[in-house]
Amino acid sequence: MSRGHRFSDDEVRGVYRAIYERRDVRSSFLADPLPDDVLERLLDAAHHAPSVGFMQPSRFIVIKDLAIRTAVHHNFERANLAAAQRYEGSRATQYRNLKLAGILEAPVNVCVVCESETSRGAGLGRQTIPETALYSTVCAVENLWLAARAEGIGVGWVSILDPQALRATLGIPESATAVAYLCLGYVSSFASDPDLERYGWEERASLEEVIFTDRFGQIGSKRR
Amino acid sequence: MSRGHRFSDDEVRGVYRAIYERRDVRSSFLADPLPDDVLERLLDAAHHAPSVGFMQPSRFIVIKDLAIRTAVHHNFERANLAAAQRYEGSRATQYRNLKLAGILEAPVNVCVVCESETSRGAGLGRQTIPETALYSTVCAVENLWLAARAEGIGVGWVSILDPQALRATLGIPESATAVAYLCLGYVSSFASDPDLERYGWEERASLEEVIFTDRFGQIGSKRR
Repeated sequence: MSRGHRFSDDEVRGVYRAIYERRDVRSSFLADPLPDDVLERLLDAAHHAPSVGFMQPSRFIVIKDLAIRTAVHHNFERANLAAAQRYEGSRATQYRNLKLAGILEAPVNVCVVCESETSRGAGLGRQTIPETALYSTVCAVENLWLAARAEGIGVGWVSILDPQALRATLGIPESATAVAYLCLGYVSSFASDPDLERYGWEERASLEEVIFTDRFGQIGSKRR
Repeated sequence: MSRGHRFSDDEVRGVYRAIYERRDVRSSFLADPLPDDVLERLLDAAHHAPSVGFMQPSRFIVIKDLAIRTAVHHNFERANLAAAQRYEGSRATQYRNLKLAGILEAPVNVCVVCESETSRGAGLGRQTIPETALYSTVCAVENLWLAARAEGIGVGWVSILDPQALRATLGIPESATAVAYLCLGYVSSFASDPDLERYGWEERASLEEVIFTDRFGQIGSKRR
Protein backbone atom coordinates (compact mmCIF):
# COMPACT_ATOMS: atom_id res chain seq x y z
CA MET A 1 0.00 0.00 0.00
CA SER A 2 2.48 2.57 1.21
CA ARG A 3 4.85 1.79 -1.69
CA GLY A 4 2.21 2.74 -4.25
CA HIS A 5 3.68 6.13 -5.10
CA ARG A 6 7.12 4.83 -6.06
CA PHE A 7 8.32 5.57 -9.59
CA SER A 8 9.18 2.75 -12.03
CA ASP A 9 12.58 1.13 -11.54
CA ASP A 10 14.01 2.94 -14.58
CA GLU A 11 12.72 6.29 -13.34
CA VAL A 12 14.10 5.70 -9.85
CA ARG A 13 17.46 4.77 -11.39
CA GLY A 14 17.41 8.02 -13.37
CA VAL A 15 17.06 10.04 -10.18
CA TYR A 16 19.89 8.21 -8.38
CA ARG A 17 22.11 8.33 -11.50
CA ALA A 18 21.63 12.11 -11.68
CA ILE A 19 22.56 12.40 -8.01
CA TYR A 20 25.63 10.11 -8.17
CA GLU A 21 26.89 11.05 -11.65
CA ARG A 22 26.42 14.83 -11.33
CA ARG A 23 29.80 16.58 -11.46
CA ASP A 24 31.04 20.12 -10.92
CA VAL A 25 32.38 20.62 -14.46
CA ARG A 26 35.27 22.98 -15.14
CA SER A 27 37.49 21.52 -17.82
CA SER A 28 35.52 19.40 -20.26
CA PHE A 29 33.10 21.90 -21.82
CA LEU A 30 32.49 21.70 -25.57
CA ALA A 31 31.79 24.80 -27.63
CA ASP A 32 28.53 23.34 -29.02
CA PRO A 33 25.65 25.74 -28.38
CA LEU A 34 22.96 24.79 -25.90
CA PRO A 35 19.60 24.70 -27.74
CA ASP A 36 17.05 27.19 -26.38
CA ASP A 37 14.43 24.50 -25.72
CA VAL A 38 16.91 22.48 -23.62
CA LEU A 39 17.95 25.54 -21.62
CA GLU A 40 14.29 26.39 -21.04
CA ARG A 41 13.63 22.87 -19.70
CA LEU A 42 16.50 23.29 -17.24
CA LEU A 43 15.29 26.71 -16.10
CA ASP A 44 11.73 25.43 -15.71
CA ALA A 45 13.06 22.56 -13.59
CA ALA A 46 14.85 25.14 -11.44
CA HIS A 47 11.71 27.27 -11.24
CA HIS A 48 9.82 24.26 -9.84
CA ALA A 49 12.11 23.97 -6.83
CA PRO A 50 10.54 24.24 -3.39
CA SER A 51 10.35 27.77 -1.99
CA VAL A 52 9.43 28.89 1.48
CA GLY A 53 5.82 30.12 1.57
CA PHE A 54 5.78 29.54 -2.23
CA MET A 55 7.59 32.91 -2.54
CA GLN A 56 9.49 31.78 -5.67
CA PRO A 57 12.38 34.20 -5.15
CA SER A 58 14.73 32.77 -7.81
CA ARG A 59 15.69 34.80 -10.88
CA PHE A 60 17.88 33.45 -13.68
CA ILE A 61 20.20 35.74 -15.61
CA VAL A 62 21.13 33.88 -18.81
CA ILE A 63 24.49 35.23 -19.99
CA LYS A 64 25.80 34.57 -23.47
CA ASP A 65 27.31 38.03 -24.10
CA LEU A 66 31.10 37.60 -24.35
CA ALA A 67 31.95 41.00 -22.87
CA ILE A 68 29.98 40.22 -19.72
CA ARG A 69 31.45 36.72 -19.42
CA THR A 70 34.92 38.19 -19.88
CA ALA A 71 34.30 40.67 -17.05
CA VAL A 72 33.17 37.82 -14.78
CA HIS A 73 36.19 35.77 -15.83
CA HIS A 74 38.49 38.64 -14.78
CA ASN A 75 36.63 38.83 -11.47
CA PHE A 76 37.31 35.10 -11.01
CA GLU A 77 41.01 35.48 -11.91
CA ARG A 78 41.52 38.22 -9.30
CA ALA A 79 39.64 36.29 -6.58
CA ASN A 80 41.46 33.07 -7.44
CA LEU A 81 44.88 34.73 -7.25
CA ALA A 82 44.01 36.08 -3.80
CA ALA A 83 42.68 32.67 -2.70
CA ALA A 84 45.83 30.90 -3.92
CA GLN A 85 47.96 33.00 -1.57
CA ARG A 86 46.32 31.32 1.44
CA TYR A 87 48.11 28.05 0.70
CA GLU A 88 51.74 27.10 1.18
CA GLY A 89 54.10 24.41 -0.11
CA SER A 90 52.58 21.44 -1.91
CA ARG A 91 49.03 22.63 -1.19
CA ALA A 92 49.82 25.86 -3.03
CA THR A 93 51.20 23.98 -6.04
CA GLN A 94 48.20 21.66 -5.97
CA TYR A 95 45.81 24.64 -5.80
CA ARG A 96 47.42 26.42 -8.75
CA ASN A 97 47.12 23.27 -10.86
CA LEU A 98 43.38 22.95 -10.25
CA LYS A 99 41.05 24.16 -13.00
CA LEU A 100 38.29 25.95 -11.06
CA ALA A 101 36.08 27.67 -13.63
CA GLY A 102 34.92 27.34 -17.24
CA ILE A 103 33.35 30.78 -17.62
CA LEU A 104 34.61 31.40 -21.15
CA GLU A 105 34.69 27.80 -22.41
CA ALA A 106 31.05 27.05 -21.55
CA PRO A 107 28.62 28.48 -24.14
CA VAL A 108 26.13 29.70 -21.51
CA ASN A 109 26.49 31.10 -18.00
CA VAL A 110 23.52 31.45 -15.64
CA CYS A 111 23.63 33.62 -12.55
CA VAL A 112 20.96 32.45 -10.11
CA VAL A 113 19.76 35.31 -7.95
CA CYS A 114 17.49 35.41 -4.88
CA GLU A 115 15.03 38.32 -4.91
CA SER A 116 14.11 38.08 -1.25
CA GLU A 117 12.04 41.28 -1.15
CA THR A 118 9.29 39.84 -3.29
CA SER A 119 5.81 40.06 -1.78
CA ARG A 120 4.95 36.62 -3.10
CA GLY A 121 4.15 34.19 -0.31
CA ALA A 122 3.27 37.02 2.07
CA GLY A 123 6.18 36.11 4.34
CA LEU A 124 4.80 32.69 5.24
CA GLY A 125 7.39 30.40 6.83
CA ARG A 126 10.26 32.85 6.95
CA GLN A 127 9.70 34.86 10.12
CA THR A 128 11.91 32.69 12.28
CA ILE A 129 14.57 31.77 9.67
CA PRO A 130 14.81 34.49 7.00
CA GLU A 131 17.69 32.65 5.27
CA THR A 132 15.08 30.23 3.94
CA ALA A 133 14.60 32.62 1.00
CA LEU A 134 18.24 32.03 0.00
CA TYR A 135 17.85 28.31 0.66
CA SER A 136 14.91 28.21 -1.77
CA THR A 137 17.18 29.57 -4.50
CA VAL A 138 19.83 26.95 -3.74
CA CYS A 139 17.17 24.25 -4.25
CA ALA A 140 16.56 25.78 -7.70
CA VAL A 141 20.27 25.46 -8.48
CA GLU A 142 20.32 21.80 -7.48
CA ASN A 143 17.21 21.04 -9.56
CA LEU A 144 18.85 22.63 -12.61
CA TRP A 145 22.08 20.73 -11.98
CA LEU A 146 20.37 17.31 -11.73
CA ALA A 147 18.12 17.91 -14.76
CA ALA A 148 21.20 19.02 -16.71
CA ARG A 149 23.04 15.80 -15.81
CA ALA A 150 20.12 13.72 -17.05
CA GLU A 151 20.18 15.69 -20.33
CA GLY A 152 23.94 15.09 -20.66
CA ILE A 153 24.81 18.72 -19.93
CA GLY A 154 27.61 19.74 -17.61
CA VAL A 155 27.27 22.43 -14.95
CA GLY A 156 30.02 24.11 -12.93
CA TRP A 157 29.33 26.36 -9.91
CA VAL A 158 31.90 29.17 -9.62
CA SER A 159 32.09 30.46 -6.07
CA ILE A 160 35.50 32.15 -6.32
CA LEU A 161 34.12 35.58 -7.23
CA ASP A 162 33.97 38.95 -5.54
CA PRO A 163 30.20 39.32 -5.00
CA GLN A 164 30.25 43.13 -5.10
CA ALA A 165 32.03 43.19 -8.46
CA LEU A 166 29.61 40.56 -9.77
CA ARG A 167 26.68 42.71 -8.58
CA ALA A 168 28.05 45.68 -10.52
CA THR A 169 28.71 43.66 -13.70
CA LEU A 170 25.23 42.14 -13.77
CA GLY A 171 23.28 45.11 -12.39
CA ILE A 172 21.94 43.15 -9.43
CA PRO A 173 20.07 45.48 -7.04
CA GLU A 174 20.79 45.61 -3.30
CA SER A 175 17.47 43.85 -2.61
CA ALA A 176 18.75 40.73 -4.33
CA THR A 177 21.61 38.26 -3.74
CA ALA A 178 23.62 36.37 -6.35
CA VAL A 179 23.51 32.85 -4.93
CA ALA A 180 25.25 30.90 -7.70
CA TYR A 181 27.21 31.61 -10.86
CA LEU A 182 26.88 28.58 -13.15
CA CYS A 183 28.65 27.55 -16.37
CA LEU A 184 26.59 25.24 -18.63
CA GLY A 185 27.38 23.25 -21.73
CA TYR A 186 27.78 19.88 -23.36
CA VAL A 187 30.94 18.09 -22.26
CA SER A 188 33.52 15.70 -23.70
CA SER A 189 33.08 13.51 -20.63
CA PHE A 190 31.77 13.40 -17.08
CA ALA A 191 34.46 12.38 -14.61
CA SER A 192 33.85 9.20 -12.59
CA ASP A 193 34.53 11.04 -9.31
CA PRO A 194 34.69 14.68 -8.13
CA ASP A 195 37.78 16.52 -9.42
CA LEU A 196 38.89 17.43 -5.89
CA GLU A 197 38.79 13.74 -4.95
CA ARG A 198 40.60 12.57 -8.13
CA TYR A 199 43.36 15.15 -7.72
CA GLY A 200 43.92 14.32 -4.07
CA TRP A 201 42.64 17.60 -2.59
CA GLU A 202 40.10 15.90 -0.31
CA GLU A 203 38.53 12.49 0.37
CA ARG A 204 34.90 11.49 0.57
CA ALA A 205 33.64 11.22 4.16
CA SER A 206 32.00 7.93 5.10
CA LEU A 207 28.23 7.97 5.50
CA GLU A 208 28.58 6.70 9.08
CA GLU A 209 30.45 9.79 10.23
CA VAL A 210 27.78 12.22 9.00
CA ILE A 211 24.70 10.52 10.50
CA PHE A 212 23.68 11.12 14.11
CA THR A 213 20.82 9.64 16.14
CA ASP A 214 18.35 11.93 17.95
CA ARG A 215 20.99 14.50 18.98
CA PHE A 216 23.96 16.15 17.27
CA GLY A 217 27.14 14.09 17.70
CA GLN A 218 25.33 10.99 18.91
CA ILE A 219 26.43 7.99 16.83
CA GLY A 220 24.31 4.88 17.25
CA SER A 221 23.55 4.63 20.96
CA LYS A 222 26.78 6.43 21.96
CA ARG A 223 27.53 10.13 22.26
CA ARG A 224 30.51 11.42 20.26
CA MET B 1 28.17 13.70 -30.39
CA SER B 2 27.47 16.17 -27.68
CA ARG B 3 24.23 14.38 -26.74
CA GLY B 4 26.10 11.17 -25.92
CA HIS B 5 25.93 11.60 -22.16
CA ARG B 6 22.14 11.90 -21.96
CA PHE B 7 20.33 9.31 -19.83
CA SER B 8 17.71 6.98 -21.34
CA ASP B 9 14.26 8.49 -21.93
CA ASP B 10 12.82 6.64 -18.91
CA GLU B 11 15.65 7.82 -16.66
CA VAL B 12 15.30 11.42 -17.86
CA ARG B 13 11.57 11.22 -17.20
CA GLY B 14 12.31 9.99 -13.67
CA VAL B 15 14.39 13.09 -12.95
CA TYR B 16 11.77 15.50 -14.29
CA ARG B 17 8.96 13.60 -12.52
CA ALA B 18 10.82 13.92 -9.22
CA ILE B 19 11.25 17.65 -9.82
CA TYR B 20 7.64 18.33 -10.88
CA GLU B 21 5.86 15.87 -8.57
CA ARG B 22 7.89 16.65 -5.42
CA ARG B 23 5.63 18.17 -2.75
CA ASP B 24 6.13 19.78 0.63
CA VAL B 25 4.11 17.22 2.59
CA ARG B 26 2.33 18.18 5.81
CA SER B 27 -0.99 16.40 6.02
CA SER B 28 -0.89 13.03 4.27
CA PHE B 29 1.74 11.11 6.26
CA LEU B 30 1.03 7.47 7.06
CA ALA B 31 2.24 5.88 10.29
CA ASP B 32 4.06 3.06 8.39
CA PRO B 33 7.70 2.91 9.47
CA LEU B 34 10.40 3.89 7.02
CA PRO B 35 12.69 0.85 6.49
CA ASP B 36 16.31 1.52 7.52
CA ASP B 37 17.69 0.59 4.09
CA VAL B 38 15.39 3.11 2.38
CA LEU B 39 16.34 5.86 4.83
CA GLU B 40 20.00 5.06 4.29
CA ARG B 41 19.58 5.38 0.51
CA LEU B 42 18.02 8.83 0.99
CA LEU B 43 20.81 9.96 3.33
CA ASP B 44 23.48 8.66 0.97
CA ALA B 45 21.83 10.59 -1.87
CA ALA B 46 21.98 13.70 0.34
CA HIS B 47 25.60 12.99 1.23
CA HIS B 48 26.45 12.97 -2.50
CA ALA B 49 25.29 16.55 -3.00
CA PRO B 50 27.80 19.07 -4.31
CA SER B 51 29.81 20.84 -1.62
CA VAL B 52 32.12 23.82 -1.99
CA GLY B 53 35.74 22.66 -2.02
CA PHE B 54 34.39 19.11 -1.35
CA MET B 55 34.09 20.16 2.31
CA GLN B 56 31.03 17.91 2.87
CA PRO B 57 29.66 19.96 5.75
CA SER B 58 26.25 18.25 6.03
CA ARG B 59 25.30 16.25 9.10
CA PHE B 60 22.01 14.36 9.43
CA ILE B 61 20.33 13.96 12.81
CA VAL B 62 17.81 11.13 12.42
CA ILE B 63 15.09 11.65 15.03
CA LYS B 64 12.62 8.94 15.92
CA ASP B 65 12.50 9.57 19.69
CA LEU B 66 9.00 10.79 20.56
CA ALA B 67 10.07 13.06 23.42
CA ILE B 68 12.41 14.97 21.12
CA ARG B 69 9.84 15.21 18.33
CA THR B 70 7.30 16.45 20.86
CA ALA B 71 9.69 19.18 22.03
CA VAL B 72 10.21 20.26 18.40
CA HIS B 73 6.46 20.17 17.83
CA HIS B 74 5.94 22.54 20.78
CA ASN B 75 8.65 24.81 19.34
CA PHE B 76 6.70 24.84 16.06
CA GLU B 77 3.39 25.58 17.82
CA ARG B 78 4.84 28.60 19.62
CA ALA B 79 6.52 29.96 16.46
CA ASN B 80 3.40 29.35 14.40
CA LEU B 81 1.17 31.17 16.89
CA ALA B 82 3.52 34.17 16.74
CA ALA B 83 3.62 34.03 12.94
CA ALA B 84 -0.18 33.89 12.68
CA GLN B 85 -0.45 37.22 14.49
CA ARG B 86 1.22 38.97 11.53
CA TYR B 87 -1.88 38.45 9.37
CA GLU B 88 -5.26 40.17 9.50
CA GLY B 89 -8.75 39.48 8.23
CA SER B 90 -9.21 36.73 5.65
CA ARG B 91 -5.43 36.16 5.39
CA ALA B 92 -5.38 35.40 9.12
CA THR B 93 -8.23 32.90 8.78
CA GLN B 94 -6.56 31.36 5.76
CA TYR B 95 -3.24 31.08 7.65
CA ARG B 96 -4.83 29.39 10.66
CA ASN B 97 -6.47 26.81 8.38
CA LEU B 98 -3.18 25.81 6.77
CA LYS B 99 -1.52 22.61 7.99
CA LEU B 100 2.16 23.58 8.15
CA ALA B 101 3.98 20.67 9.80
CA GLY B 102 3.73 16.92 10.28
CA ILE B 103 6.36 16.53 13.00
CA LEU B 104 4.43 13.98 15.07
CA GLU B 105 2.55 12.24 12.24
CA ALA B 106 5.65 11.43 10.17
CA PRO B 107 7.53 8.38 11.53
CA VAL B 108 10.97 9.96 11.04
CA ASN B 109 12.31 13.51 11.32
CA VAL B 110 15.73 14.50 9.99
CA CYS B 111 17.45 17.72 11.00
CA VAL B 112 20.04 18.63 8.36
CA VAL B 113 22.89 20.59 9.89
CA CYS B 114 25.82 22.46 8.33
CA GLU B 115 29.10 21.96 10.21
CA SER B 116 30.93 24.85 8.56
CA GLU B 117 34.01 24.66 10.78
CA THR B 118 35.16 21.37 9.31
CA SER B 119 38.73 21.37 7.98
CA ARG B 120 37.68 19.23 5.04
CA GLY B 121 38.26 20.99 1.73
CA ALA B 122 40.89 23.30 3.29
CA GLY B 123 38.70 26.33 2.63
CA LEU B 124 38.80 25.98 -1.15
CA GLY B 125 36.13 28.04 -2.91
CA ARG B 126 34.66 29.75 0.13
CA GLN B 127 36.92 32.73 0.77
CA THR B 128 34.79 35.17 -1.19
CA ILE B 129 31.34 33.75 -0.40
CA PRO B 130 31.41 31.90 2.98
CA GLU B 131 27.66 31.20 2.73
CA THR B 132 28.52 28.52 0.18
CA ALA B 133 29.00 26.11 3.10
CA LEU B 134 25.30 26.56 3.99
CA TYR B 135 24.37 26.35 0.32
CA SER B 136 26.11 22.96 0.10
CA THR B 137 23.87 21.66 2.87
CA VAL B 138 20.76 22.94 1.09
CA CYS B 139 21.81 20.94 -1.99
CA ALA B 140 21.90 17.87 0.25
CA VAL B 141 18.32 18.60 1.37
CA GLU B 142 17.11 18.87 -2.24
CA ASN B 143 18.86 15.62 -3.22
CA LEU B 144 17.15 13.82 -0.33
CA TRP B 145 13.78 15.34 -1.25
CA LEU B 146 13.96 14.28 -4.91
CA ALA B 147 15.23 10.76 -4.13
CA ALA B 148 12.42 10.43 -1.58
CA ARG B 149 9.79 11.41 -4.17
CA ALA B 150 11.12 8.76 -6.56
CA GLU B 151 10.85 6.20 -3.75
CA GLY B 152 7.26 7.29 -3.04
CA ILE B 153 8.19 8.93 0.26
CA GLY B 154 6.89 12.33 1.33
CA VAL B 155 9.08 15.05 2.81
CA GLY B 156 8.00 18.26 4.52
CA TRP B 157 10.42 21.10 5.40
CA VAL B 158 9.42 22.86 8.62
CA SER B 159 10.86 26.38 8.74
CA ILE B 160 8.53 27.80 11.38
CA LEU B 161 10.80 27.04 14.32
CA ASP B 162 12.81 29.09 16.78
CA PRO B 163 16.37 28.13 15.78
CA GLN B 164 17.84 28.73 19.27
CA ALA B 165 15.29 26.44 20.91
CA LEU B 166 15.93 23.83 18.21
CA ARG B 167 19.67 24.11 18.86
CA ALA B 168 19.10 23.42 22.56
CA THR B 169 16.76 20.48 21.95
CA LEU B 170 19.11 18.75 19.53
CA GLY B 171 22.42 19.74 21.18
CA ILE B 172 23.69 21.52 18.07
CA PRO B 173 26.98 23.34 18.85
CA GLU B 174 27.56 27.00 18.01
CA SER B 175 29.93 25.98 15.21
CA ALA B 176 27.03 24.41 13.31
CA THR B 177 23.76 25.64 11.80
CA ALA B 178 20.47 23.76 11.54
CA VAL B 179 19.59 24.37 7.89
CA ALA B 180 16.46 22.24 7.55
CA TYR B 181 14.08 20.31 9.76
CA LEU B 182 12.44 17.58 7.66
CA CYS B 183 9.53 15.22 8.27
CA LEU B 184 9.66 11.96 6.29
CA GLY B 185 7.23 9.15 5.69
CA TYR B 186 5.05 7.24 3.29
CA VAL B 187 1.93 9.17 2.30
CA SER B 188 -1.68 8.51 1.40
CA SER B 189 -1.25 10.70 -1.68
CA PHE B 190 0.92 13.35 -3.28
CA ALA B 191 -1.05 16.48 -4.14
CA SER B 192 -1.18 17.50 -7.80
CA ASP B 193 -0.02 21.03 -6.97
CA PRO B 194 1.66 22.78 -4.02
CA ASP B 195 -0.67 23.19 -1.00
CA LEU B 196 -0.17 26.97 -0.94
CA GLU B 197 -1.29 27.12 -4.59
CA ARG B 198 -4.28 24.79 -4.10
CA TYR B 199 -5.50 26.71 -1.05
CA GLY B 200 -5.21 30.09 -2.76
CA TRP B 201 -2.33 31.46 -0.67
CA GLU B 202 -0.11 32.20 -3.69
CA GLU B 203 0.08 31.59 -7.45
CA ARG B 204 2.88 30.11 -9.54
CA ALA B 205 4.94 32.81 -11.28
CA SER B 206 5.33 32.42 -15.04
CA LEU B 207 8.73 31.28 -16.29
CA GLU B 208 9.02 34.42 -18.44
CA GLU B 209 9.00 36.73 -15.44
CA VAL B 210 11.91 35.00 -13.70
CA ILE B 211 14.35 34.80 -16.64
CA PHE B 212 16.57 37.76 -17.55
CA THR B 213 19.08 38.17 -20.39
CA ASP B 214 22.68 39.20 -19.64
CA ARG B 215 21.74 41.63 -16.86
CA PHE B 216 19.32 41.60 -13.92
CA GLY B 217 15.89 42.91 -14.94
CA GLN B 218 16.57 42.72 -18.68
CA ILE B 219 13.79 40.78 -20.37
CA GLY B 220 14.54 39.78 -23.98
CA SER B 221 16.20 42.82 -25.58
CA LYS B 222 14.42 45.30 -23.30
CA ARG B 223 15.33 46.56 -19.84
CA ARG B 224 12.68 46.18 -17.13
